[in-house]
Amino acid sequence: MRAIVFDQTLQFRSDVVLRSPGSDEVIVDVIQAGICETDLQLCKGYMAFAGTLGHEFVGIARSGRFAGQRVVGEINCACHACEMCRRQLSNHCPNRTVIGIVAHDGAFADSVIVPDQNLHLVPDHVSDTEAVFVEPLAAACRIAEQILLDGSEVVTVLGDGRLGNLCAQVLRHHGCDVRVVCKHDFKQQVLQKLDIPTVMLADLQPTRDSDIVVDCTGSPTGLTTALQLVRPCGTIVLKTTVAADQTLHMAPFVIDEIKLLGSRCGPFAAALELLSSRAISVKPLQTATYPLEAAATAFEHAVRKDALKVLFGVR
Amino acid sequence: MRAIVFDQTLQFRSDVVLRSPGSDEVIVDVIQAGICETDLQLCKGYMAFAGTLGHEFVGIARSGRFAGQRVVGEINCACHACEMCRRQLSNHCPNRTVIGIVAHDGAFADSVIVPDQNLHLVPDHVSDTEAVFVEPLAAACRIAEQILLDGSEVVTVLGDGRLGNLCAQVLRHHGCDVRVVCKHDFKQQVLQKLDIPTVMLADLQPTRDSDIVVDCTGSPTGLTTALQLVRPCGTIVLKTTVAADQTLHMAPFVIDEIKLLGSRCGPFAAALELLSSRAISVKPLQTATYPLEAAATAFEHAVRKDALKVLFGVR
Repeated sequence: MRAIVFDQTLQFRSDVVLRSPGSDEVIVDVIQAGICETDLQLCKGYMAFAGTLGHEFVGIARSGRFAGQRVVGEINCACHACEMCRRQLSNHCPNRTVIGIVAHDGAFADSVIVPDQNLHLVPDHVSDTEAVFVEPLAAACRIAEQILLDGSEVVTVLGDGRLGNLCAQVLRHHGCDVRVVCKHDFKQQVLQKLDIPTVMLADLQPTRDSDIVVDCTGSPTGLTTALQLVRPCGTIVLKTTVAADQTLHMAPFVIDEIKLLGSRCGPFAAALELLSSRAISVKPLQTATYPLEAAATAFEHAVRKDALKVLFGVR
Repeated sequence: MRAIVFDQTLQFRSDVVLRSPGSDEVIVDVIQAGICETDLQLCKGYMAFAGTLGHEFVGIARSGRFAGQRVVGEINCACHACEMCRRQLSNHCPNRTVIGIVAHDGAFADSVIVPDQNLHLVPDHVSDTEAVFVEPLAAACRIAEQILLDGSEVVTVLGDGRLGNLCAQVLRHHGCDVRVVCKHDFKQQVLQKLDIPTVMLADLQPTRDSDIVVDCTGSPTGLTTALQLVRPCGTIVLKTTVAADQTLHMAPFVIDEIKLLGSRCGPFAAALELLSSRAISVKPLQTATYPLEAAATAFEHAVRKDALKVLFGVR
């Protein structure tokens, strides 16, 4: 089958052999898949991944509970036997593989193998191009699982990219007073069209009045900026991994009793509900769609400053 | 009056003039006062403090609600008018002074000036030498205000010093399964006599199974060690300020969804209740008591590896 493989370099290949699925696994024929910041990091050597990339996808299940139907799939494939899994923290199972990220071939391919219990049915009125956003949207929804929001919160989202945009939409949906700190005119315009208040990074004042600051910058400087914006006893949510070490002055965390909260994968059911009810708009995030054969061009496009979500149209 | 003043150097002086108290302030005649890690840091230039040191004390109020009675005093002197104060976060009032730490003369003196509403009455059966521990004990109690403990938590406390010992006792009182990571034989023995499990730092395994890790090391390496011990979705509590910058790899916070929680001053009422009910034992922490005149000797003693709490006996 066709697949986009990373093995020290990024390659489109047409001769990849799909392994046989295990008894609890399903072959999903991919319809669309999206390029995520993590994919760009993996191409720089993050996690030392080698294999087929891609973890944001919608496809058709060949077998299992949803045979013949459109599905999306959670990416953490857990052992369901360890202490973490028993604690309902299977996303943190130490024995897990992660689709397209850790020891599990991904979805930039004609087909991807997914545990049946990771699959979620896509409602008919949610389009393919919406459904492919379920994984990153679920990551944004994770914040509302980790913090009990009462809708009175003043929130600053750092970063106008894919994830920053989705986090801002989700937190606004929860009633928060959200603004996004932007670096790029085009991405600011996308947010403005969604009626989300924005401020350019260059115009930012260190007001220290945000109850919550969500760092979606993917930059080592994001956390330093967050500390200038969060109020005492407030929360900084780290959404993006930064591969490099960061040098930080930790005393403000203690003096101002700041909470720092790492946040990763989230609830697919909540994300599907938000798309289904039209509470979240993902259409403005769609930048371009490429065939798998155009892997190199698509990845180059995804790193451009004026790009939001670059998709692969597989079938 | 007599006072221990820091102004680039540590000095005992017998000619310090007490300022006049404001209308909401009370003169407290100090009975005993304790040296804290923060005092040692202030002597290294932390907070650029100049004035009379000392923020852990018990004394007799000359006037106000508790005139003539034994009192302890909260150290944050807030404006009670700003947004933080209105939010019941007066410990974080941006206009506050802090007794013996920020623009407010401290308690290593014959007398200290304290806002009347900061004072708490000391029950008769709590001794002076116990009451002087209320401020650091309250700081340990702060953890139980910030984290909803159900008593099932596995907790590792990093640091066998004054604050580590108190945090371990408080968290054990809340039912947690606590162990303390020690560096010093003498301090380990103190903990063992309190029936608190210990492990020497050199023997520590990176097991990543602690629900909560409390960093009381005051060392830049504490946080790195904490990350090796905390489980995914667990909490690291930062109790001690480290003046130096720290270089950290932040990706594990996101991947493992670790929570980092700065923790500072705590509830005096809870600390007094723990002392009053004999739930916490502070006697094993008393290392030595000096007169104010022996300031230099007392501070030298407080930094020694075999010292826990060094006190000043004022009257």
